[in-house]
Amino acid sequence: MKITGIFAPVPTPFSADGSLDIEAWRINLRIWKESALDGIVICGSNGEMPFVTVEERILLTEVAAEETGGKLKLMAGAHFPSTRETVACAKALASAGAGALLLLPPHYFKGNQTAILNYFIEVADNSPVPIFLYNMPANTGVDMETETIISASQHPNIKGIKDTSGNMTKLGYLAAAAPEDFSVFGGTGNWFLAALAMGACGGTMAASILYPNTCRKIYTSFKENNIKDAMELQAKLLPVSDALTRRFGVPGLKAALDSKGMRGGPCRLPLLPASEEVKKEIMTILDNSGLDKYETWRA
Amino acid sequence: MKITGIFAPVPTPFSADGSLDIEAWRINLRIWKESALDGIVICGSNGEMPFVTVEERILLTEVAAEETGGKLKLMAGAHFPSTRETVACAKALASAGAGALLLLPPHYFKGNQTAILNYFIEVADNSPVPIFLYNMPANTGVDMETETIISASQHPNIKGIKDTSGNMTKLGYLAAAAPEDFSVFGGTGNWFLAALAMGACGGTMAASILYPNTCRKIYTSFKENNIKDAMELQAKLLPVSDALTRRFGVPGLKAALDSKGMRGGPCRLPLLPASEEVKKEIMTILDNSGLDKYETWRA
Amino acid sequence: MKITGIFAPVPTPFSADGSLDIEAWRINLRIWKESALDGIVICGSNGEMPFVTVEERILLTEVAAEETGGKLKLMAGAHFPSTRETVACAKALASAGAGALLLLPPHYFKGNQTAILNYFIEVADNSPVPIFLYNMPANTGVDMETETIISASQHPNIKGIKDTSGNMTKLGYLAAAAPEDFSVFGGTGNWFLAALAMGACGGTMAASILYPNTCRKIYTSFKENNIKDAMELQAKLLPVSDALTRRFGVPGLKAALDSKGMRGGPCRLPLLPASEEVKKEIMTILDNSGLDKYETWRA
Amino acid sequence: MKITGIFAPVPTPFSADGSLDIEAWRINLRIWKESALDGIVICGSNGEMPFVTVEERILLTEVAAEETGGKLKLMAGAHFPSTRETVACAKALASAGAGALLLLPPHYFKGNQTAILNYFIEVADNSPVPIFLYNMPANTGVDMETETIISASQHPNIKGIKDTSGNMTKLGYLAAAAPEDFSVFGGTGNWFLAALAMGACGGTMAASILYPNTCRKIYTSFKENNIKDAMELQAKLLPVSDALTRRFGVPGLKAALDSKGMRGGPCRLPLLPASEEVKKEIMTILDNSGLDKYETWRA
Repeated sequence: MKITGIFAPVPTPFSADGSLDIEAWRINLRIWKESALDGIVICGSNGEMPFVTVEERILLTEVAAEETGGKLKLMAGAHFPSTRETVACAKALASAGAGALLLLPPHYFKGNQTAILNYFIEVADNSPVPIFLYNMPANTGVDMETETIISASQHPNIKGIKDTSGNMTKLGYLAAAAPEDFSVFGGTGNWFLAALAMGACGGTMAASILYPNTCRKIYTSFKENNIKDAMELQAKLLPVSDALTRRFGVPGLKAALDSKGMRGGPCRLPLLPASEEVKKEIMTILDNSGLDKYETWRA
Repeated sequence: MKITGIFAPVPTPFSADGSLDIEAWRINLRIWKESALDGIVICGSNGEMPFVTVEERILLTEVAAEETGGKLKLMAGAHFPSTRETVACAKALASAGAGALLLLPPHYFKGNQTAILNYFIEVADNSPVPIFLYNMPANTGVDMETETIISASQHPNIKGIKDTSGNMTKLGYLAAAAPEDFSVFGGTGNWFLAALAMGACGGTMAASILYPNTCRKIYTSFKENNIKDAMELQAKLLPVSDALTRRFGVPGLKAALDSKGMRGGPCRLPLLPASEEVKKEIMTILDNSGLDKYETWRA
Repeated sequence: MKITGIFAPVPTPFSADGSLDIEAWRINLRIWKESALDGIVICGSNGEMPFVTVEERILLTEVAAEETGGKLKLMAGAHFPSTRETVACAKALASAGAGALLLLPPHYFKGNQTAILNYFIEVADNSPVPIFLYNMPANTGVDMETETIISASQHPNIKGIKDTSGNMTKLGYLAAAAPEDFSVFGGTGNWFLAALAMGACGGTMAASILYPNTCRKIYTSFKENNIKDAMELQAKLLPVSDALTRRFGVPGLKAALDSKGMRGGPCRLPLLPASEEVKKEIMTILDNSGLDKYETWRA
Repeated sequence: MKITGIFAPVPTPFSADGSLDIEAWRINLRIWKESALDGIVICGSNGEMPFVTVEERILLTEVAAEETGGKLKLMAGAHFPSTRETVACAKALASAGAGALLLLPPHYFKGNQTAILNYFIEVADNSPVPIFLYNMPANTGVDMETETIISASQHPNIKGIKDTSGNMTKLGYLAAAAPEDFSVFGGTGNWFLAALAMGACGGTMAASILYPNTCRKIYTSFKENNIKDAMELQAKLLPVSDALTRRFGVPGLKAALDSKGMRGGPCRLPLLPASEEVKKEIMTILDNSGLDKYETWRA
């Protein structure tokens, strides 16, 4: 089945001592389960993926499977720098209950699209569940070329891409050239509607952690040919989305969760906490958006 | 009156010896006059702006005013590296019949948004006709910041922006924050529909030189809430647009004009002619797009 | 004869109304003539080249030839965006007395090293005096590839390069592969000694406008195998050089001239004047360098 | 004691199945022990650091301590994305026998020099042995600012930096502003002499794995004021160094080891093996350099 809709790339909660806070995780999962979300992404960038060990990723996935009981699709971040560690992680996360795996390209040694493609194919060959590519050039310094992605999309176990590059030309080419059941997802709420207009069939965006109904309504309005409503919501979502990701990063996102009844808590170092000034700015943006009225489910 | 719709950034025709080919210019103008275009951009990037002297820009504008007689709005490229030469050019082009002026930011000496803003204000203060900003980071190496553009948009004689950066976050912020009568234009046909979805009110795109009806139909379908037709045309337009600009540049665009009954001809050096191989590839893309059937006006 | 030594890329003086200040130009030329400089660069980047018309460049060169009477070698900036305007400028500057011409690569339309090479060859074929290439990626957004430069260096009328990229690998390859009489120059005083160590045979650096003896002493100490003196002077020159170019640009450089007995004056817009704070910072750096004691010639 | 001289960033040998090849490691260590090297870097970039677990890094360090018995200084790569994992790794590597630790800045979440500084200080506070910073923007996408490095250099347990950026301005500022016992190292053999001229006191370069005597001779010739010999060797080393790192990466380096009597072997995936064509090109460059005659120790 083709993966579509809204997936929230949720944060990983930590205690003050830096250990996983599984109780907070359970609380959040129960909240998201009641929302309009189609699924969540565990240990993506907002889940502080590079700081979370394979054992921790397994535990987070197991708990998520237990708490959500199939109500939410579970996509889990399986990337490690080496192919061998990634394959091992992929198998373990599938066993733990992940329905799909999100995979960054290798990026420390740069410049080789062949090596990138080979990495995806190796992991896809060995993964029990489908692979979702994750193009995130702002963090990795690697921009997966359109041709590389299209080649990867031919693999029977590579089923989609989350693209955060914002390159609409690339999105358009992918939507046109990838197989019918390959999912092209926009990777931020800043321009979700633009991605849909270019042929995307869903999105994973930090804003959907707090505003899943808004995000879903953009999606359904668009599909129901109600472009005016979709544009109005997109315009309101832009500053919210931008504040929750690009501008203030994961610390800001977690502060926002704390303020809206969820469990954000601290990030792991080297990520530093959001300042009080930043928190205040984010809250002002959220409150001014007028979007909370669509999110009564979390009240 | 707010500037909206489709503006074609037309090429400047040259003879084999490198001089202006005014006869070819007249022929093309008569053709475009019969199309669905709202206006043309004279001496934009596709018009080889940096290679065209102020005297030549004046002549091109005068002839365009004469040939189109108000049927097409005329926007003319007035940028020079120094403020003083730009102001002189702006005045001359307005006298020659330009209804608006397209203006790159200064970009040889980089890094100073204050200097950029000051340049636009100096020219706007002295120009008899409105200024349209032109954000073109791929060519200039300067990306105008959202805040700079919003500040500029407050000037009563700065009336719009052509943005080619493809930054949908920026487009969205501009559409939300600029004055009502400030026009946000997408700067390429590759993702025109995405720009409209983010709040743009028009576009200038090389593809509209050959496919103005297609571009206009995307625009009107979108405005009439017919998103499916708009998406279908956008999907067909993408490879055509990409071939006519980003991939093969002005030499490729001119070759395409030559093949479709217009006058393209050679570029000025240092731009080298398109190879036969490139020309063939472009023609294949155009022919395969299936878009020529919407452009019977040029038959 | 191979071009070697220290060339000062001197600023172009303007009056308050923006016109050329030829009297100030004469005063400065008489000062530089008494220094240890081997030559000057007229209308390079520090000469606000993009803002100076061909007629003005001719006049500046004529006056320089008249004032310096062969005591200083004259290299003049001949670049224009189009090949045809550059060729015309090259011929005129040679007639006006330039002994060599400094030439940026074409850079508005990016990405084509073949077009860059072709441009240099066309101009070199038509220029009465030798061409010096000018690689300046920070301003042009174009980095000339090593292979392109080596190809160009085979032309009998292309005799050197000013490289400001700071890419020591490129400098080393050029020094090794270019013909014996092709001059590799470092393009800033920040790392002049490093360039010499990689095989350069001279430099053009803004710092040499005010500190020519210091720059020449780095050069001669290095050639006389007195590396310790060269290093000591280079260490003192670094913050001075960095302040006079990269950090504060031409407005800062001109302010420094005004403070040291030369004629700086205003820049042309869009370059904005240096603030009082910036001027003060530059003066502190210059005074703290301890280098003025080597420059008694200008007292 | 200040760290100076030549440190070879040695590769990590793997068996065909991807496991550590400790026997090959021992063989190589015994070879390097006989060379002019001052030390080696274990699990730097050429050691495929991101692919090597903490347990493996410990083992490699223990074996190196055992084999070299104090004859070579041991610097080991301790970086992990999270501060907590890095601190644990630092303690373990110090116990295993590392005399210093090489540390990349955090780089997945970009743009915050405060977080970078905080990371270094946290690790330095907790490390039993000194920290060497590792600025490697080509791989990390993060360029540590001069001010950040100077701040870090004030910490009593941060004792040096390996800079591969090639930014000579930065190297010069660091050599001038860091404490006397803080070591500034150039990070490649491509421009080692340039770095020395700007004030560096040593280098770690892949070329020194195969050509340690050459590298050391550049260093000693420079210190003995024999600049001509140093320049001649640097000119010969440049293409060798460039081939062993920037151009062909770790797979090429390992192939070169295989050809010169050491144990290179395969890389871990996703790094793909060097093609036969690449291997041949590298060998031609090495053989043509004429440098093997200085390296009779490994015959």
